[in-house]
Amino acid sequence: MTGSVVLDAPADERDRLARLALAELFEPGDHRVDSLMSGMSPLQLFIALRESGDSPEMSDAQEDIALRMDSLRPDRTLELGERQGFRYITPADEEWPSQVDALAGLPPIQARTGAPLGLWVRGDLPLTALEKSVAIVGSRSATSYGVEAAGQLAASLADKLLVVSGGAFGVDAAAHRGALAAGRPTVTVLAGGVDMLYPTSHERLFAAIAETGAIVSEMPPGMPVMRMRFLSRNRLIAGLTRGTVLVEAALRSGAINTANWTAALCRPLMCVPGQLTSVTSQGVHEQVRLGKGVLVAGAEDVLELVSRPGEHLVPPRRGPEKARDRLTVEQRQVLDAVPVSQPATSERIAREAKVGLKKVGGTMPVLEAQGLVARSEDGWQLAPGAVDR
Amino acid sequence: MTGSVVLDAPADERDRLARLALAELFEPGDHRVDSLMSGMSPLQLFIALRESGDSPEMSDAQEDIALRMDSLRPDRTLELGERQGFRYITPADEEWPSQVDALAGLPPIQARTGAPLGLWVRGDLPLTALEKSVAIVGSRSATSYGVEAAGQLAASLADKLLVVSGGAFGVDAAAHRGALAAGRPTVTVLAGGVDMLYPTSHERLFAAIAETGAIVSEMPPGMPVMRMRFLSRNRLIAGLTRGTVLVEAALRSGAINTANWTAALCRPLMCVPGQLTSVTSQGVHEQVRLGKGVLVAGAEDVLELVSRPGEHLVPPRRGPEKARDRLTVEQRQVLDAVPVSQPATSERIAREAKVGLKKVGGTMPVLEAQGLVARSEDGWQLAPGAVDR
Repeated sequence: MTGSVVLDAPADERDRLARLALAELFEPGDHRVDSLMSGMSPLQLFIALRESGDSPEMSDAQEDIALRMDSLRPDRTLELGERQGFRYITPADEEWPSQVDALAGLPPIQARTGAPLGLWVRGDLPLTALEKSVAIVGSRSATSYGVEAAGQLAASLADKLLVVSGGAFGVDAAAHRGALAAGRPTVTVLAGGVDMLYPTSHERLFAAIAETGAIVSEMPPGMPVMRMRFLSRNRLIAGLTRGTVLVEAALRSGAINTANWTAALCRPLMCVPGQLTSVTSQGVHEQVRLGKGVLVAGAEDVLELVSRPGEHLVPPRRGPEKARDRLTVEQRQVLDAVPVSQPATSERIAREAKVGLKKVGGTMPVLEAQGLVARSEDGWQLAPGAVDR
Repeated sequence: MTGSVVLDAPADERDRLARLALAELFEPGDHRVDSLMSGMSPLQLFIALRESGDSPEMSDAQEDIALRMDSLRPDRTLELGERQGFRYITPADEEWPSQVDALAGLPPIQARTGAPLGLWVRGDLPLTALEKSVAIVGSRSATSYGVEAAGQLAASLADKLLVVSGGAFGVDAAAHRGALAAGRPTVTVLAGGVDMLYPTSHERLFAAIAETGAIVSEMPPGMPVMRMRFLSRNRLIAGLTRGTVLVEAALRSGAINTANWTAALCRPLMCVPGQLTSVTSQGVHEQVRLGKGVLVAGAEDVLELVSRPGEHLVPPRRGPEKARDRLTVEQRQVLDAVPVSQPATSERIAREAKVGLKKVGGTMPVLEAQGLVARSEDGWQLAPGAVDR
């Protein structure tokens, strides 16, 4: 009888096997599964599907499921995956990154939604490490600025946050590399199975990631990468992390899809600004303009936004000290009364500054020594460029 | 007797002469004048000052004023200015840009505040044109990006808004030039008198501005440029316009001073993003981070923000059309089920896409013709780069 592998298993394995079976019956993030799961457990859903397969009035979809149920062997999928050194974790495991469950019940985006049924993991890093994590995602065709910004942000953040991305060309790879360069683990979430490393030319990058961090997927091993699976994967990147940093993204792009999930989860969407003229920054700026994302000007801003309130506050930024800062109030009054582009006598300066002539006489050499004023035959004027000093 | 020039004038000239007299007694934007003016008219203030000068107990400041009052000849200042072709306007004139009166009573910033007593104008453009205006300001040491962004924004906006700036090097000059290049007038607000053109190397730019637009100052002609007068001038730029566009500004800079005035006036402070690594964008990003400014990604955003609600709405931006957009729903389903990096048979694709095999057979050549999929011996896979198409 179909599906008996699941039902005949010991009680404590049935939930896990039911989840694996459902993951083979439905595309990850299938919004129908999410709807059904709101009323029942994975095991209950599996049983219900199995029983409807036995009923004489079946819809096309049900017939398709019934056909495939016959060939399901979740126990073999599990064994095969584990033999390759991968592990399958579910909400029953201590390692489960429970923040991802917030995806359950969210309105679908491009027909996908829901928490993952389980996660395949390649690499020793326990996924509990995702509790303090941030996603850094962006354009595959990033500019050199985007690549540099992603790498530097990741390197700066990696000490405090686990950097998560999708392993793609451009921004994703730069983020992973930045974390690795800082000697910290990083996590990549794939659209296919954890053995279906895509893009293939990132083979060495993926090997380095798996060595200290983890490669994660909700797809069973061996499942190929398809366009729609990128969408499911993007939702996981948003769901697994505390917030998403968006570094360069065209107006319509996968990174914007991740951004939409982040916003749907009410988690911070942190936007890295770029030049107005850069096509790859347009999507990022638009998120800020629409009020979905906030601008971040550096790693500290990201840390502040994904931390507990008050934990990593960034004080208002002050520029570098200026020569003017080292002056006394009276010296400043004198300086402010020195004409910019024509000389004035000390008498005139004293009058404008409302300071005694003697004080002006004592102050001008001090200002001159600091390069703020210049002396001429007709008096004093501001030194070239001193307006900003 | 001191000040009799004002009091002896015909009734309809007294207010104007009192304003000119006060402008010579006090620095523009002197917060004390603003406080006093909340209770009395300029003429009343002038009379009060004159009378306190006659009293035996005088503070130092009063004594200074009393001394200078003796030499005041606002009638001559007016005559001299008008002879040079400049005009002096006050709130009594129809041309008065009344939006600048919003500066009255604002808390001082660096000890300056208040509406101007009057404005000196050089150039024929009536200042009523400022009713639909925008300030574009920024760093003197702008990067080539900042100069280009300021120029292009000004050129794009100049058809709908009068571009106002401070005539300085860098962003200011680029904004003026952008408006002029678009064949539109522009207004510069100076820190010294309208005849004290600073920086002097912008002489030709100022001449071009005065030809179709206007050079404006609250200082009487002949008054030199000093550091503190830049602060007063910045407040006027914010006060005369509907909002301020900030294009590149270091954390501590005159442009940030203008930004602070704009925020204090509750008018839109529009921030042009730049690269994280650019020092001249740090001050701009900080305004956004602090919630004082909003990011603008182009001229349309500026126009939307300074217009009446709903007048120039910018629709959410969509990227360019993609090949996928031209497909039917069924064709998309097929495309989404084609593996990215390894071939699949039509049977497999049909199963994944939940579409009949015949449909897949008909669809694949269509997708191939659009460069979305590639055929190989073992079946079909996504064409290189087609993930984003």
